[in-house]
Amino acid sequence: MDCEIIKERVELFRSYMRKSGLSAFVVVSSDPHSSEYVADRWKCRKWLSGFDGSAGTVVVTADKALLWTDSRYWLAAEKSLEGTGFELMKDGLAETPSIIEWLCKNLKDADVVGVDATVCSMVELDAWDMPLSDCGIALNLVNDPFDELWKQRPSVPLSVARIMPLEIAGESAASKIARLREAFKKEGVDGMVVTMLDEIAWLTNLRGNDVEFNPVLVSYMIVTAKEAVLYIDERKLTPDVTAYLLSQGITTAPYEEILQAIKTYDERKLLLQPNKCNIAVGLTVGENAVPSDSPIALMKAVKNETEIKGFERAMLSEGVAMVKLLNWLKPAVEQGGVTELDVDAKLTELRSADESFTGLSFATIAAYGANAAIVHYEPTPAENAVLQPKGFLLLDCGGQYLHGTTDVTRTIALGGLTDEEKADYTRVLRGHISLAMAKFPKGTCGTQLDVLARQWLWQAGENYLHGTGHGVGHFLNVHEGPHQIRMNNMPTHLVPGMTVTNEPGLYKAGRHGIRIENTMIVKEYCETEFGAFYQLSPLTLCPIDTTPIVSELLGNDAREYLNAYHAMVFEQLSPYLEGEELSFLEDACKAI
Amino acid sequence: MDCEIIKERVELFRSYMRKSGLSAFVVVSSDPHSSEYVADRWKCRKWLSGFDGSAGTVVVTADKALLWTDSRYWLAAEKSLEGTGFELMKDGLAETPSIIEWLCKNLKDADVVGVDATVCSMVELDAWDMPLSDCGIALNLVNDPFDELWKQRPSVPLSVARIMPLEIAGESAASKIARLREAFKKEGVDGMVVTMLDEIAWLTNLRGNDVEFNPVLVSYMIVTAKEAVLYIDERKLTPDVTAYLLSQGITTAPYEEILQAIKTYDERKLLLQPNKCNIAVGLTVGENAVPSDSPIALMKAVKNETEIKGFERAMLSEGVAMVKLLNWLKPAVEQGGVTELDVDAKLTELRSADESFTGLSFATIAAYGANAAIVHYEPTPAENAVLQPKGFLLLDCGGQYLHGTTDVTRTIALGGLTDEEKADYTRVLRGHISLAMAKFPKGTCGTQLDVLARQWLWQAGENYLHGTGHGVGHFLNVHEGPHQIRMNNMPTHLVPGMTVTNEPGLYKAGRHGIRIENTMIVKEYCETEFGAFYQLSPLTLCPIDTTPIVSELLGNDAREYLNAYHAMVFEQLSPYLEGEELSFLEDACKAI
Repeated sequence: MDCEIIKERVELFRSYMRKSGLSAFVVVSSDPHSSEYVADRWKCRKWLSGFDGSAGTVVVTADKALLWTDSRYWLAAEKSLEGTGFELMKDGLAETPSIIEWLCKNLKDADVVGVDATVCSMVELDAWDMPLSDCGIALNLVNDPFDELWKQRPSVPLSVARIMPLEIAGESAASKIARLREAFKKEGVDGMVVTMLDEIAWLTNLRGNDVEFNPVLVSYMIVTAKEAVLYIDERKLTPDVTAYLLSQGITTAPYEEILQAIKTYDERKLLLQPNKCNIAVGLTVGENAVPSDSPIALMKAVKNETEIKGFERAMLSEGVAMVKLLNWLKPAVEQGGVTELDVDAKLTELRSADESFTGLSFATIAAYGANAAIVHYEPTPAENAVLQPKGFLLLDCGGQYLHGTTDVTRTIALGGLTDEEKADYTRVLRGHISLAMAKFPKGTCGTQLDVLARQWLWQAGENYLHGTGHGVGHFLNVHEGPHQIRMNNMPTHLVPGMTVTNEPGLYKAGRHGIRIENTMIVKEYCETEFGAFYQLSPLTLCPIDTTPIVSELLGNDAREYLNAYHAMVFEQLSPYLEGEELSFLEDACKAI
Repeated sequence: MDCEIIKERVELFRSYMRKSGLSAFVVVSSDPHSSEYVADRWKCRKWLSGFDGSAGTVVVTADKALLWTDSRYWLAAEKSLEGTGFELMKDGLAETPSIIEWLCKNLKDADVVGVDATVCSMVELDAWDMPLSDCGIALNLVNDPFDELWKQRPSVPLSVARIMPLEIAGESAASKIARLREAFKKEGVDGMVVTMLDEIAWLTNLRGNDVEFNPVLVSYMIVTAKEAVLYIDERKLTPDVTAYLLSQGITTAPYEEILQAIKTYDERKLLLQPNKCNIAVGLTVGENAVPSDSPIALMKAVKNETEIKGFERAMLSEGVAMVKLLNWLKPAVEQGGVTELDVDAKLTELRSADESFTGLSFATIAAYGANAAIVHYEPTPAENAVLQPKGFLLLDCGGQYLHGTTDVTRTIALGGLTDEEKADYTRVLRGHISLAMAKFPKGTCGTQLDVLARQWLWQAGENYLHGTGHGVGHFLNVHEGPHQIRMNNMPTHLVPGMTVTNEPGLYKAGRHGIRIENTMIVKEYCETEFGAFYQLSPLTLCPIDTTPIVSELLGNDAREYLNAYHAMVFEQLSPYLEGEELSFLEDACKAI
């Protein structure tokens, strides 16, 4: 990115600020739907600053331009901001002020700060409003100032909706809406403004291609006891889709009419998620809002039998592609010249053999050696290591298949390993298996199980700072809630039908990174005088490298589990492989 | 208890209610200090209903008398209430209305419900006020109606205060108060009304004997930046104690003057614990109250080096007594006629050999066979099983020693065991050891570690519904917070110096009960590139019965831990034993 272009954009933005009487503006990284992945149209922070990391917030004043971002991105941001006039604020350091603190210190009484009401959440409004007004600073809510400033701004994405057939969804949209209406009664609300794109996709059984990695359609929905209206650009809807929607009791209206429409629900109590709902929507619902978690999130998290069968089918496809990749990998590395991006490309090529594969579920992390210690590392043409026949390759990847979404991580020994690498690998693997073997009573949440995955690392004074597990959508977002397995308190109980990843890791800066991940499903285990108990069962079908294992650090229970897992993987995948690839699988799955 | 006496008391109470214009009265089980153990003076619910379980709430109306209590006490309550006119309300059953629900249904508009403001907490007031007023029922706060109704009511306890010397306390009261004043600055308050008796005992380094099992003095305290006033009956203070208090910057005033005194702090912000502070105090502080957790609780929970040394000394005394008891037990049982109460008496006799032993820290649970499956079982002269040379004796006991408080549980095989008993015992023991071996990073709370103790039971579809661990006071209450190890979310981090019990169990109604408990202390473990890590170290010194262990269910790690623990116990206790008792210890501690 040319520094001069960034400087011009900032000056353009300042002239807008002057005209609007704003002393500062806070530019966040989100879209109107609190999406994890944001369509190009809403990458306003990137447009203004040039910095393209997934997390970061910009503040512009008359004479300052600053970017707050966390430690994952400090190096990249420093490089990216050089010469642009932007200053990097290292979020997470004790000496770095928060944005609010900085504004209170650097603005003067009666100054006005602008924020974009169409992309900031109600929770952010609540967090900013009081502290700023305590400092004598006013908050001014603006509707998308980039619309006129950003020439050639990408339009709202316009992919065409496709219907997920009942044979794949397992439950009709009409039935899901009926269940949602039951939830309204329990919550004591008249309806809900649905703002999350994956919730709308799940509820309508529609999929699209509006956001990279996420097969969703930019839209809103309002559901009440009698109505279900999808607010969407009608160009996305074929006559078939419109007819289908009507058959499910869903009518449509233009995307832009959402605020106007909300006003017609005056005097009805509408459920809203304050941490997900944008300010424009939130303030329009106003006093009729009932702040609550989305009942759709929990409904969506619990997969039905058909969805589970779909996951199993997607995992077969993914497993076959992964085995082919692993069989290719080591000899190719030994021949020389294979890069991280080559691994990514090869895997995508192998996956594409299955016609149900529609793309990646997130950007592949193929990270060699010390690169794997950078938790959010992605190879780029500029930073793309050549793999050597030694050390570890960390490969974290996932696909979108018509029948399900996959998410798998393997750490592969490409040749000689240090004793430290072997011991660390074994502790991560033992943690993965300890969690995989967990049995737990009804009413258990992920926080209670998290230690099972970390205990062997903790014994060695080691830890990883990311979560251990998240839900995975059904041909939908690879990260979904509301349950999680992590150190901090996540109160949602794990219930049968939930997908959840199991992905402990370990990252030693400048040395190596390790992560081993299967996607699991919560199943029933037994019913005793002590109540119902549940267990985790792996969906992912892919050999786990046994060559780095230090036998005495693994434990007998874990060894038995690993052997049983590999026997199952071989049984499932072997019918789809032959020749050298079948031999590779047989070898990779043999008992240790 | 004679039924006619109870009926007379209820009629007396009703005449008081009529005079006071009350349609109903709620009688709770607590004292003005939210104590876990209540002095006889405040056992008003027991006086009125005859029911003497530790938990239960009475509601009296013009024609009804009801007792709510939980499942632990249903059998005992049914027996106790027979013929008294009281009705048992089984708390915890879906069909049992809550007290609020019952009042709303059975009273009529404009009826008035009385509660005793001197023993109910501010949190209870908040919980009752709105729902009752929504039903058109008024709440009337009354100051201790039993004072005139209960003839021969025990007075406020009057034990004499004794000073805990600095050699035992490890920190002067003046220093503790100075630290508390630092906490006030952080909390932004001018002071605090201290209402919990153990917090006052800790803060002043005074001990008393006002409440059974708890060496505390009934008192209040107000601490501000400049003052520290102890509100206490002056008959409890010798001239030495008064002089000592003055030397620590503490003045005294009569117990009864607390409310009047609070009024003089008008316009100063006073920290109060809403769930612990009685309504009379809470409303007197009024708008100047800053509701918060007590900073004293956390300070008290972290033991200093001197306190830890004192615990170690107390554990030696307790360990010697326990070994002598265990050596006596089996031959005595084989001879016949030994009852649960005999075990209790024998243990108290053995402990009394140490002059620092001042009494029990809670009522001994000596529960044989199926009795041990009743979680809060205590033998009484009426229910007192004779021990047979088969099955388990569960012995949960603790002592108050001048240097520390103990809490230990052992489950002892008295003879032949079923396979189920052996397997259950081994799973409980393995869980105890898995938790004991835990290493964890700074910032970990007990909820995160709880599964370590439960995992082997969960594998077998078994569980226990009590917590896994609680803090233990230093010559103070055997149960203290704010940290706990349990299934539900307890956010207080475990930090070095905290005592915490490790007591998994298993209870099979009509069959057997098992619990194995050591008191542990949190210690530093290591400091690595991943930060500081902590560990648990056992304080309790007492052999764990190895005869019931099913070897293949224990695991190698646990076996090694157990052998190392027993070697340590032998090393510590053997110098204090000789002859047959030393041989017993040697045998009990030999490696398996």
